[in-house]
Amino acid sequence: MTDRPLTPHLDRITTPADLKGLTDDALRHVADEVRAEVISAVSETGGHLGSSLGVVELTVALHAVFNAPYDKLVWDVGHQCYPHKILTARRDRIRTLRQEGGLSGFTKRAESEYDPFGAAHSSTSISAALGFATGRDLGMPTGDAIAVIGDGSISAGMAYEAMNNAGHEKRRMFVILNDNDMSIAPPVGAMSAYLNQLNGTPFELFKDMGEAFEASLPQPMRDGARRARELVTGQGGGSSLFEQLGFTYIGPVNGHDMPQLLAVLRRAKAQSDGPVLIHACTVKGKGYAPAEASNDCYHGVSRFNVTTGEQQKSKPNAPSYTKVFGETLTELAASDPKIVSVTAAMPSGTGLDLMQNRFPKRVFDVGIAEQHAVTFAAGLAATGLRPFCAIYSSFLQRGYDQIVHDVALQNLPVRFAIDRAGLVGADGPTHAGAFDVAYLANLPNMTVMAAADEAELKHMIATAAVFDDGPIAFRYPRGEGVGVAMPDAKILEIGKGRVVSQGSDVALLSFGAHLSECTNAAEELSTHGISCTVADARFAKPLDQDLIRQLASHHRALITIEQGSEGGFGAMVLHYLANSGLLDGKLAVRTMTLPDRFIDQASPAAMYADAGLTAVDIAASAMQAVGKNIIHLT
Amino acid sequence: MTDRPLTPHLDRITTPADLKGLTDDALRHVADEVRAEVISAVSETGGHLGSSLGVVELTVALHAVFNAPYDKLVWDVGHQCYPHKILTARRDRIRTLRQEGGLSGFTKRAESEYDPFGAAHSSTSISAALGFATGRDLGMPTGDAIAVIGDGSISAGMAYEAMNNAGHEKRRMFVILNDNDMSIAPPVGAMSAYLNQLNGTPFELFKDMGEAFEASLPQPMRDGARRARELVTGQGGGSSLFEQLGFTYIGPVNGHDMPQLLAVLRRAKAQSDGPVLIHACTVKGKGYAPAEASNDCYHGVSRFNVTTGEQQKSKPNAPSYTKVFGETLTELAASDPKIVSVTAAMPSGTGLDLMQNRFPKRVFDVGIAEQHAVTFAAGLAATGLRPFCAIYSSFLQRGYDQIVHDVALQNLPVRFAIDRAGLVGADGPTHAGAFDVAYLANLPNMTVMAAADEAELKHMIATAAVFDDGPIAFRYPRGEGVGVAMPDAKILEIGKGRVVSQGSDVALLSFGAHLSECTNAAEELSTHGISCTVADARFAKPLDQDLIRQLASHHRALITIEQGSEGGFGAMVLHYLANSGLLDGKLAVRTMTLPDRFIDQASPAAMYADAGLTAVDIAASAMQAVGKNIIHLT
Repeated sequence: MTDRPLTPHLDRITTPADLKGLTDDALRHVADEVRAEVISAVSETGGHLGSSLGVVELTVALHAVFNAPYDKLVWDVGHQCYPHKILTARRDRIRTLRQEGGLSGFTKRAESEYDPFGAAHSSTSISAALGFATGRDLGMPTGDAIAVIGDGSISAGMAYEAMNNAGHEKRRMFVILNDNDMSIAPPVGAMSAYLNQLNGTPFELFKDMGEAFEASLPQPMRDGARRARELVTGQGGGSSLFEQLGFTYIGPVNGHDMPQLLAVLRRAKAQSDGPVLIHACTVKGKGYAPAEASNDCYHGVSRFNVTTGEQQKSKPNAPSYTKVFGETLTELAASDPKIVSVTAAMPSGTGLDLMQNRFPKRVFDVGIAEQHAVTFAAGLAATGLRPFCAIYSSFLQRGYDQIVHDVALQNLPVRFAIDRAGLVGADGPTHAGAFDVAYLANLPNMTVMAAADEAELKHMIATAAVFDDGPIAFRYPRGEGVGVAMPDAKILEIGKGRVVSQGSDVALLSFGAHLSECTNAAEELSTHGISCTVADARFAKPLDQDLIRQLASHHRALITIEQGSEGGFGAMVLHYLANSGLLDGKLAVRTMTLPDRFIDQASPAAMYADAGLTAVDIAASAMQAVGKNIIHLT
Repeated sequence: MTDRPLTPHLDRITTPADLKGLTDDALRHVADEVRAEVISAVSETGGHLGSSLGVVELTVALHAVFNAPYDKLVWDVGHQCYPHKILTARRDRIRTLRQEGGLSGFTKRAESEYDPFGAAHSSTSISAALGFATGRDLGMPTGDAIAVIGDGSISAGMAYEAMNNAGHEKRRMFVILNDNDMSIAPPVGAMSAYLNQLNGTPFELFKDMGEAFEASLPQPMRDGARRARELVTGQGGGSSLFEQLGFTYIGPVNGHDMPQLLAVLRRAKAQSDGPVLIHACTVKGKGYAPAEASNDCYHGVSRFNVTTGEQQKSKPNAPSYTKVFGETLTELAASDPKIVSVTAAMPSGTGLDLMQNRFPKRVFDVGIAEQHAVTFAAGLAATGLRPFCAIYSSFLQRGYDQIVHDVALQNLPVRFAIDRAGLVGADGPTHAGAFDVAYLANLPNMTVMAAADEAELKHMIATAAVFDDGPIAFRYPRGEGVGVAMPDAKILEIGKGRVVSQGSDVALLSFGAHLSECTNAAEELSTHGISCTVADARFAKPLDQDLIRQLASHHRALITIEQGSEGGFGAMVLHYLANSGLLDGKLAVRTMTLPDRFIDQASPAAMYADAGLTAVDIAASAMQAVGKNIIHLT
């Protein structure tokens, strides 16, 4: 792509063992070169640049002080792991990040022994690290456990549960709080405010290091350290939230000052016998001016020009589903003051930033807190408001019990806007929206829709807005729409699908955004003399029983197609067919779903091909169902 | 039952409005009589006695000061709501608690306008209350929002997420921390330790109330109040964890001292303009000597003799599934040091107390923290240990994302012991284990079993113990087994079911504890000339495809039966049949599952009758499937 950086120090490093014995100064050089390598690699691949740049020194220091893979380094979320991958025998593949067949954009157990616990969803690292520390204490062959977690991630309930338990267990373990006052969006919540004003607390280290140490800190940290030293000798009584949870608190330390980081980590490693939290202040995007200057610190970027920082975004052919959601909801909110919305730390990812700009008091960013988000939305609904709870499919898994217990059981009209349904591309299996239909469509009182295209999404938003009878969900994929004309929003009849084209041999019943594949399959099949009806179910619940009965009665085969797992739409159709006696005759039925395995990152099209969900696959299934030879299919 | 208590003051109270204008002394009398009424009622119905007795004064005080139903009183978990129900127009039905057709044992929106948000799973109240407070601020017709939450429940991540958000939002709302240092078991975790040593903080109230107020407190609280007053005038710098999260902290106050409670609540109501946490110390089982003296403070009791406290437990015919689990796992752990176990605050409910007694260092009670429990278990598994994660079906919903993302995707061998699968009786729909098969059986890498009886459970535990290839789950119902002989544990072949009895017309394929109903149905059917094969699938995943193919090929009808929702075992069988072409012939298939609605409390037998899952229902379904008239069925 561009000229690769010169990396004489880094070139001598293959594994963390090669860092041992290097001087602090040499480690600093390694860090500088890791940073250049990360920038260079991500300029070619795209990816999570800002987070990785923020932990360059931290990564080098951790690997210099601890002994991976015997010591277990658990990166929370894992999107900041590029420096870690470079230092752990994966530099040769770093330019395959997030590509088909290449390195995952996250940590991944299957990829390296240096990734003891994979991630991608936030706030799991402390739980996993406590598991490792406990295993070690019970005699398993593992060393120290170190969790590295951001200030956004540590605000989630799961991290709190883990700290609460770790503080109680009192096992030796290390939590590095990587505090850059920035998750994807600026973090919200009381914890964030607390961290901003946190003023250190007594720790042996600071006393010993004395003034010289203190002088090395930037001003706000210097004030913190001074306060900490005062508390050691002074009246005190204050203790940090982390100490109240049973952790020894060290910090704040400058996460980009290699000598300071090394000193703190070495000291903590040598002296700790319980849970320790090291509060490191870092800058997201550190050391790359365009990232530091950007609003989102280049959280996730496309390929870019290293010199200018300019990202190479391909020109979209159609508006993204996300944008259609944001714009439509904002329009509806303008005329309906009862519409409010909830996001869990994803205002821009969900498109709710558009509504936030116009109606800031009616959009609630609750932080990384999906459990709370769902029940908070249920509370809003109980007052008569019309809440839209916008959470990606795979993250909504975090609020599943709340959907069952607080929303469905109470039949409260929360509207779930489920973005990133189906396979999502470079983010891989952790971000796939595979299970939402299966975990929602069997819940009593729930209505579940999927949008075939961006116009349908618009209708579904409008339909959900006025549906006050109970919870309703609509799912839609990542990325741009199919380019249909955008009509005015209309209210759909609940539980009614539509026939897109009428045929006679095979019925292709699509649920969601694979409708165009069905249409393509129908065309292919027509060249083989098989006449297809193509229908868009729109609803997985309630099912359009009339439509299904018609399709079952007037075709030789019925095939359901969806961008989701077994147990979802296809299963609901099968249950209905079986228990209505519609299967007792000669109807051949097939369900096309995501397969029973996790699918690694690639382009969405390649992932669906891997999943066996292309138009050709659909056509082949239809041929097989009606007993025709499938060899002729192209 | 026994003589009813005399309740002259309470007899004049129908709704909270009747408490207005009463003197503090009269309110104290009302409270005393509410307590007597709770004891009397629960002695007849059984139920959550200890928790309800602990909040008698709190309930009276809250209803005296606030204005329900305009003000929204949200009881966390809701099992402590009996005094609340007595005071909110439901006293006339209080002796129907937890009975079929009677009052729910929890708060329930459908039951009363005084229950603005139902509960039964813990730690949802602050989220809901924040929803109400937000709705009020956006102009919806609702008053103050008050969450009452126990010290066990507030340790869950969800409560922390809500406090973090509420502290940020700064809306007026009230959280009453009902601190009895006791949830179902003694609470664990750093938060619990923290509360135990919490020493109050400055609050205007305490200054004003002065020495007289202080003197009214029990000794530990007096010390706390004194410390608080010192902090007002003194050096300070300390602040409670709750204040760090943005709440005004008031406490601790004596939760059984009516004048003190009333004063604190009135003051807080009059003066607060942001989130307030009132820390009330209470005694679980307060005022009933047998409860106060009991280990679990009569958390959940059977009917009992008021005078002696003796509970009338019916003599079991067979060991409970829970006990079989606890005993079997303890036996296996004796010979396999890698076996460890994890519970989320339910050591006795899960039977893990048996293992805890013998191997205390290998049983981890992580508190009410299912998310953490699952990922912590995944970390343990990653070290090579063999963790059993024992969580009730409906509570495991809280760890769903962690099962997908941390366990299944990484293929880590966590063993999920899923108690309370299916309908559970008096605890009603919130505790029903309806969805676990549906939310587990479609996950790649997951193995899912269900025990037909207690001997099968024993085999499944032994099978899971040695299965290191990936995650494995086994489910079993609440209550006692069917009384089969208990053989030695044997290792089952993965993915293999068994034929229980061979027939020729209809195949009844059971998954789990409804096997005996299937056998009964087969007997019934034989009297109508229909010959049944009865099979026990054992596995929902991987399916026993050979068995299913055989059953499909050699019978006119195949009926699946399970104690769970659609999308579960039956759906997996249908997917397999459809996509193998086995449905294309003349086979009639039916899936018998829980219906698409939540089922209110009754006896499990009555609930399954309501669900249409009795032997008679199964026989009727079989008759219908083979085209026979079903009128003759008894």
